[in-house]
Amino acid sequence: MPEKIGRQTVFLKSSPCVISSAGVVGKREGDGPLGGEFDRVFEDGRMNEDSWEKAESDLHRCAVETAISKAGLSASDIDIILAGDLLGQSMGTTFGIRELNIPFLGLYGACSTMALSLATTALFVDSGAVNTAVASTSSHFCSAEKQFRLPLEYGGQRPPQAQWTATAAGAAVIGKAKGNVTVSSLTYGKICDLGITDANNMGAAMAPAAADTIAVHLRETGRTPADYDCIVTGDLGAVGTELLRRLLSVEHGIDISQNHSDCGLMLYDMDERDINSGASGCGCSASIICTHFMRRLSSGELNRILFVGTGALLSQLSPLQGESIPSIAHAVVLDGGRKSAHGCL
Amino acid sequence: MPEKIGRQTVFLKSSPCVISSAGVVGKREGDGPLGGEFDRVFEDGRMNEDSWEKAESDLHRCAVETAISKAGLSASDIDIILAGDLLGQSMGTTFGIRELNIPFLGLYGACSTMALSLATTALFVDSGAVNTAVASTSSHFCSAEKQFRLPLEYGGQRPPQAQWTATAAGAAVIGKAKGNVTVSSLTYGKICDLGITDANNMGAAMAPAAADTIAVHLRETGRTPADYDCIVTGDLGAVGTELLRRLLSVEHGIDISQNHSDCGLMLYDMDERDINSGASGCGCSASIICTHFMRRLSSGELNRILFVGTGALLSQLSPLQGESIPSIAHAVVLDGGRKSAHGCL
Repeated sequence: MPEKIGRQTVFLKSSPCVISSAGVVGKREGDGPLGGEFDRVFEDGRMNEDSWEKAESDLHRCAVETAISKAGLSASDIDIILAGDLLGQSMGTTFGIRELNIPFLGLYGACSTMALSLATTALFVDSGAVNTAVASTSSHFCSAEKQFRLPLEYGGQRPPQAQWTATAAGAAVIGKAKGNVTVSSLTYGKICDLGITDANNMGAAMAPAAADTIAVHLRETGRTPADYDCIVTGDLGAVGTELLRRLLSVEHGIDISQNHSDCGLMLYDMDERDINSGASGCGCSASIICTHFMRRLSSGELNRILFVGTGALLSQLSPLQGESIPSIAHAVVLDGGRKSAHGCL
Repeated sequence: MPEKIGRQTVFLKSSPCVISSAGVVGKREGDGPLGGEFDRVFEDGRMNEDSWEKAESDLHRCAVETAISKAGLSASDIDIILAGDLLGQSMGTTFGIRELNIPFLGLYGACSTMALSLATTALFVDSGAVNTAVASTSSHFCSAEKQFRLPLEYGGQRPPQAQWTATAAGAAVIGKAKGNVTVSSLTYGKICDLGITDANNMGAAMAPAAADTIAVHLRETGRTPADYDCIVTGDLGAVGTELLRRLLSVEHGIDISQNHSDCGLMLYDMDERDINSGASGCGCSASIICTHFMRRLSSGELNRILFVGTGALLSQLSPLQGESIPSIAHAVVLDGGRKSAHGCL
């Protein structure tokens, strides 16, 4: 059962287990450096649907169904699904999962959603409130871009600090069963807002939240970065990664440069056109954590990682009203199967 | 600590307590039958802000700060706030609470959010993950109407089945301390969608979800409606209330007509112009539960209620894409200070 060890950090003492996980992506993500890791790559980003939102819903459902199926379970075995996405009223999630007939707890954490849902689902399992539950999220380049920035048809040039919203979804089944990967602790983040108003500069907006959550997590657990094979942020991109490392070093005296990876820098070939500062979107870290990292934790290639999901809590209206971008980061510790650390991937 | 007693229902055995609660409303709500119950009535629905969304944020923050202050606490005493609202990316919440420096878990449940946040916050406290936490939500007629339906300036006539989104917010501080009101169990709902496509007919869309959650709750707990002084739904309005009672009676053989109240029928004088089928919005049930019902539970006038928050999970885009309205209802049991049942209010 959960043990509170600080204002924001909780240890999960019963070792809730990741029974299975799945990541599904669009064509561009499938063509990237991690393309071989995903459970499914959709060549048609529109998924034969008549709107991008419906395509995202299909992607979300596919991730959830794949994870449940990999666990050898069916939807009726799942006590609850904790999920959300970037779209207004979490449309990708609610319309994606409505036919599954699984009790549903809607979450909102923007691109931090996979960390938020993993953390909270594991806490539910650890508390005894549920036996088996799903954590999931999704994003779609086209539904996100038209919502937060400009109509796709406009074809405007993207500034160098912009990130490319991933067309991707991830899901994990968490339960009491034995397994190679467990969720051992979590740290819920506070909202940080240092006044960034550029909706194209998510990395700068989110870096202070990531720095705050990492610093709080290390302080409350009494750990150092070296206690983790990898500190994985999602999705700060090149601009945000640079800022995070500098903020942690200058403000907190914490050096993570030796074992830090950012999902925003892993999904695409960074030299590709329009990728600019890297990847973003709920589905970016979700699909990478639920495939690449879970696999390496399960095999023992990685022993323990700190996954820090980062979210920019802007709305589609707030930049138009001159508002700055509140951001948040939630952290969750994933423990692998063996005790041999191999460094960051 | 939590005890799972069915797929959807959890007993909270440590009796997490409602330490304090607050409801704040706009002028129209303050002029209604419950006007005297609220902690604050804002005469100016715009709150001196330059957008309706910023006004909703102010309302949300006011409810949270009032509840924390009534508990004799300050923001730094709160381990986490679980909150959300109707707006895209939960703008009323995130921008409302960002200065409070409280760890934040974003929820999405549309108008079911107060039940969802009360349930989940109490579960967190019961599990030992947090000591003291806040559950809150808000809605604003003007920000909701322009988002989901038509520009306010259009001044279109509202159909008789339409509900009036409340300008209101509610917040509750929940903790381990002793108090007169405790949260004793909860039932998370499943998404129901019977094909209603009229974004003006929330009551009809949500009634099946409310019926499902109430039926599941009674079955999993082995209780009958008579075990509750009141089954309080929020916010079905006149159309949805009629449908809920009929669905429960015909499909489940459950008669709640003797002890059922709907928050949507309590907030306004139902004969007033444009109120039509009643009130709706996250803030409707939130402000009524956090004042009227908490007070009666605390005094012993009510012994035990089942609060069933109902949410229509449509997005601002989904009706325009021809989609029907997925809905959900979450239930939470609130136990009062004394053992004398006085019937529904």
